[in-house]
Amino acid sequence: MKAIAFRGVGDVRVESIPDPRIVEPTDAVVRITTSAVCGSDLHQYHGRAVVEPGAIMGHEFMGIVEDVGRDVRAISRGDRVVAPFSISCGRCEWCLRRLPTQCSTTGRAVFGGRFGKQFPGGQAERIRVPFADHMCERIPADLGDERALFLGDILSTGYACAENGGIRPGDTVAVFGCGPVGLLALQSAHLFGPARVFAVDRVDYRLKLAEELGATPVDLDRGDPIEQLRAATAGRGPDVVLEAVGHEIPFAQAIQAVRAGGTVSSVGVYVEASIGFPAREAFFKDLTLKMGICNARNYIVPLMPLVRVGKLQPARIITHTLPLADAPRGYAIFDRKEDRAIKVLLKP
Amino acid sequence: MKAIAFRGVGDVRVESIPDPRIVEPTDAVVRITTSAVCGSDLHQYHGRAVVEPGAIMGHEFMGIVEDVGRDVRAISRGDRVVAPFSISCGRCEWCLRRLPTQCSTTGRAVFGGRFGKQFPGGQAERIRVPFADHMCERIPADLGDERALFLGDILSTGYACAENGGIRPGDTVAVFGCGPVGLLALQSAHLFGPARVFAVDRVDYRLKLAEELGATPVDLDRGDPIEQLRAATAGRGPDVVLEAVGHEIPFAQAIQAVRAGGTVSSVGVYVEASIGFPAREAFFKDLTLKMGICNARNYIVPLMPLVRVGKLQPARIITHTLPLADAPRGYAIFDRKEDRAIKVLLKP
Amino acid sequence: MKAIAFRGVGDVRVESIPDPRIVEPTDAVVRITTSAVCGSDLHQYHGRAVVEPGAIMGHEFMGIVEDVGRDVRAISRGDRVVAPFSISCGRCEWCLRRLPTQCSTTGRAVFGGRFGKQFPGGQAERIRVPFADHMCERIPADLGDERALFLGDILSTGYACAENGGIRPGDTVAVFGCGPVGLLALQSAHLFGPARVFAVDRVDYRLKLAEELGATPVDLDRGDPIEQLRAATAGRGPDVVLEAVGHEIPFAQAIQAVRAGGTVSSVGVYVEASIGFPAREAFFKDLTLKMGICNARNYIVPLMPLVRVGKLQPARIITHTLPLADAPRGYAIFDRKEDRAIKVLLKP
Amino acid sequence: MKAIAFRGVGDVRVESIPDPRIVEPTDAVVRITTSAVCGSDLHQYHGRAVVEPGAIMGHEFMGIVEDVGRDVRAISRGDRVVAPFSISCGRCEWCLRRLPTQCSTTGRAVFGGRFGKQFPGGQAERIRVPFADHMCERIPADLGDERALFLGDILSTGYACAENGGIRPGDTVAVFGCGPVGLLALQSAHLFGPARVFAVDRVDYRLKLAEELGATPVDLDRGDPIEQLRAATAGRGPDVVLEAVGHEIPFAQAIQAVRAGGTVSSVGVYVEASIGFPAREAFFKDLTLKMGICNARNYIVPLMPLVRVGKLQPARIITHTLPLADAPRGYAIFDRKEDRAIKVLLKP
Repeated sequence: MKAIAFRGVGDVRVESIPDPRIVEPTDAVVRITTSAVCGSDLHQYHGRAVVEPGAIMGHEFMGIVEDVGRDVRAISRGDRVVAPFSISCGRCEWCLRRLPTQCSTTGRAVFGGRFGKQFPGGQAERIRVPFADHMCERIPADLGDERALFLGDILSTGYACAENGGIRPGDTVAVFGCGPVGLLALQSAHLFGPARVFAVDRVDYRLKLAEELGATPVDLDRGDPIEQLRAATAGRGPDVVLEAVGHEIPFAQAIQAVRAGGTVSSVGVYVEASIGFPAREAFFKDLTLKMGICNARNYIVPLMPLVRVGKLQPARIITHTLPLADAPRGYAIFDRKEDRAIKVLLKP
Repeated sequence: MKAIAFRGVGDVRVESIPDPRIVEPTDAVVRITTSAVCGSDLHQYHGRAVVEPGAIMGHEFMGIVEDVGRDVRAISRGDRVVAPFSISCGRCEWCLRRLPTQCSTTGRAVFGGRFGKQFPGGQAERIRVPFADHMCERIPADLGDERALFLGDILSTGYACAENGGIRPGDTVAVFGCGPVGLLALQSAHLFGPARVFAVDRVDYRLKLAEELGATPVDLDRGDPIEQLRAATAGRGPDVVLEAVGHEIPFAQAIQAVRAGGTVSSVGVYVEASIGFPAREAFFKDLTLKMGICNARNYIVPLMPLVRVGKLQPARIITHTLPLADAPRGYAIFDRKEDRAIKVLLKP
Repeated sequence: MKAIAFRGVGDVRVESIPDPRIVEPTDAVVRITTSAVCGSDLHQYHGRAVVEPGAIMGHEFMGIVEDVGRDVRAISRGDRVVAPFSISCGRCEWCLRRLPTQCSTTGRAVFGGRFGKQFPGGQAERIRVPFADHMCERIPADLGDERALFLGDILSTGYACAENGGIRPGDTVAVFGCGPVGLLALQSAHLFGPARVFAVDRVDYRLKLAEELGATPVDLDRGDPIEQLRAATAGRGPDVVLEAVGHEIPFAQAIQAVRAGGTVSSVGVYVEASIGFPAREAFFKDLTLKMGICNARNYIVPLMPLVRVGKLQPARIITHTLPLADAPRGYAIFDRKEDRAIKVLLKP
Repeated sequence: MKAIAFRGVGDVRVESIPDPRIVEPTDAVVRITTSAVCGSDLHQYHGRAVVEPGAIMGHEFMGIVEDVGRDVRAISRGDRVVAPFSISCGRCEWCLRRLPTQCSTTGRAVFGGRFGKQFPGGQAERIRVPFADHMCERIPADLGDERALFLGDILSTGYACAENGGIRPGDTVAVFGCGPVGLLALQSAHLFGPARVFAVDRVDYRLKLAEELGATPVDLDRGDPIEQLRAATAGRGPDVVLEAVGHEIPFAQAIQAVRAGGTVSSVGVYVEASIGFPAREAFFKDLTLKMGICNARNYIVPLMPLVRVGKLQPARIITHTLPLADAPRGYAIFDRKEDRAIKVLLKP
């Protein structure tokens, strides 16, 4: 089959590899109907996260079950399913604590090999999904791929970011970063009844979409975002800041911007061993900071009804849908924010 | 001045009484610009709640500060203010626990004398407001009386009902009762991101407004509401039921309708010493029940921004605005649901 | 094997029945080392809960795994295990919501057949445990049967009662009922840092044990418990009341006793379709009521370390350990509170 | 009167200054019966926090009301009171949000001038307490100074640290730092029912007291505390880490030590603009971090019953009680950990 392999910094290629097959009795093989390029794929693409040459990329995918191992009970051939980006057994201590992304059975593996054990990814025609009973969630027919796909990663991640923010009705929220995760965090923030949502970025077309999604844009090119947010909140700062960039500067800005007693929920991917932390500011303002990789498995079921009724509209961030064979171009467009790119899908 | 006095069951009258004046140094006198007839006024009107003949009715009001006692610091003459329906000192053990409606200093008094100590009400041209620094909240000029008035009672009450329900994004919610409080509970429920909201009543024009406010109507005249709700939720029942009627039958129905592990938040006014409680059902389904009179003072400030941005639209329930002198007719219209009445305002 | 069969009101008998065996590939057969008579067994014993003649009684048991079905992975022959009183699959919608006692796969079955589907109980020499991977929890060797057994029911139930009370450090707590569950709720309450705990009962030896466990006794024979609790709390009432009786009178008393804004957590078993509910009191005092059958499976793992370090001492309530063959006498002693009985164990 | 003045790094002196008197009608003057030297006083003593020469030190004090302004209602001459370390009005937006230490009226002032506006401190014979109705809490006669004093700062701070940790019954907790705040955080942690508490320090006599208070000591001189904690928790790490040191190294260690999905509650005083933050670790383990200066006013009333019944024993950390005139020696002993010093009281 065709799959997208990592071959070096800035170099992903379409390659032919053997089809995956059932290895464990709890496996499924899924024929992929749609996958996506994720911001965290770029960490590998840029060489900031280690991945072996030849590794098959991608951890956002969905498709049709083609084969199941003999112990699989919950799903069958022909089922249309989505799976979370991280691989979990559903049985270990961490899974039972509802922290599946910390699964000790799989060593915190993710599809496409970003951290933990290497595992072939979903930018391919087919994929082997371990622990399929636990991992695969059936998708109802009325939910097209474009609306269901992101349940497995960035919609759950964006939602978790908003939920961790502890937003209460009437709050003022600021979202740092209008990439795919930031925009879905923004959509999710609206589920908690904020009076106002600000969206911080410098890319005009992303700020424009944020505005269409109900946020007031804060353009980094117009000055210090902390000052802009204070000016808009009578000097107080937002009650909650959702940080969806993953760099040291917006991380510190988020902490400086939030009001005393407020919460920063950070969902950016951090690969640095140490970054600067504004300790005095955090101390004197009574900070709550939540950060971390999403336990996406937990969110797929609860978020599905919100997508179905249209209260979450994940498809609005899709700007490009390319054939799988064009994945190298998809990476480049997404990486360079060319052609007003926000989210790039790949169709095998 | 003119004021509305209780004179017997079904009998309220416009009477002339002396103007209120400052008694304690912490008092304010407020010239009323708008007041309202509340569902709980009807308990007195019907003789279900004891009130002395001659008592001045009304606990929903707002207006302009006309005079303040010498110890009042936070408000001044000319300020436009709203106050909560219950009178609290802001200093006692209960107020410090954020349960101002339990205030021990005032003996749980309410304006218009529904329970606790008798105190002249707000269906009048002027009113004396004790503990004015604590009780009066200034209203910004851009917030008209129709949007601000209900902060002091039914909007806070409806919101608290929704908040106590512990609604989570994606939940299914049912509101029992589409009177003024039920409709504001319904509006408030939407702040918590439910996937679906059902509204239960039998009055067609109220169900229609509920539908306009984003709910699916459940008409009591079309059959058992429990069955209708089950049919709409794959047999499971709503996650949260907001009970805004205040009678034994919907109270029991709410408990029977909610899904196992769910929450019933009841905000109806109960004057009966004992009503039936479906104990076996509650036991086997793991019920959380929240009920009680609202601590409205707590909600005025947090809800104001939501009214300002239009996420709460309390004025949509207003159907009648009458001169104060027409209050007896206002009571009758509201009581009998004549002329598609939902909420009746009185203008001195 | 020998087992205890229900034969009519007040009539349980030792009978010989066939040994259980593996039926489903997910089953285990456990050789019972200790079981217990539970207060809810008495509902059947008294005929208040329907159970078929010949049903094998008992839902508190532990023992050694003797056989496992071919799909069982997590436990093996020879493992020493405890299981929760209710039978759950671990996979259905309700189990995934962490409400295993509502399991739709088993129809809310419990061992010994109190509600849901009939299923042979644990007052026997052996028992078949369905969904053994999910149901059976291994017990470390340092935890004797007397300390581990109650994890499967009454310790989890008592703990859940305390947890649902939302006790905060410094609170005053009252426990209504000093039977086995009440005494374990009392022990559990101490985990949440209350300043004072009161224990309400009329049985002298139970009040004495409550006192040894850190409670101030409130003797029902010395007057109205509501008045006694008010007198001890400056007229305010306890912050939290744990109701562990399961009758209409203490249920209403609990609601009347708790302070305004407080919580009643009720864990008594209610088999009545309707009981009286003090609605006016509940309304005017802002009540939170939690009630329901325990999701014991959730608590076995988290409570185990507390038993191991001795912060929970469930064995202190054991007053009688009888041979299984003496179960009829054990029921009688327990039922009539003879011989200072609190908790009766049965040893096959 | 005599008071302790800052005169330079490492230099505090007993000086004679005018007695304080009522300035505002809401003031009280308190004759101090006991004050204390706090760890955060050492920031000034070491010159790490700016304070003007001549400033009167100290923010932990209690005493007898000697005079009150004409608007003071809640306290009277002769009342024995304690006050929180930070000065708040009780009325501003921040106070109403229950964040009194952020009070905008006082500009976040503290007694003894550590941050915000300079204000004379409590290491003196008398002190002026602004907003006395709000600030002063009466202490019952059965609560000696040694047990009541720390309610105003370090007991509330230690308790808040534990509460912010979100400890649940059965959790494993580690406290970093066995100074006065760490030891009170440790005592407070026990109110939340942990199965085990570890205490990390290198000072033998402090570790010994931690052990007497129910903790397992972890001696920094015996190796990496992260490794020691992992070894004691089956490789997992504590569920909650309470960080009571206030330096970059233990801050990072706390984050590295805590289990995935766990909480670090930091209560150390940070005066550095930026410190290192282990971002990758925090990201991959799903961290909750709470940090900040305590809103001590909120805790005085709720903690008082716990001190009265002996569930909190703050006096156990007191090692030295000196005359006020010996304050310079008290600072030196405390600073250098001489004579097994933990907490030093000063008696005017």
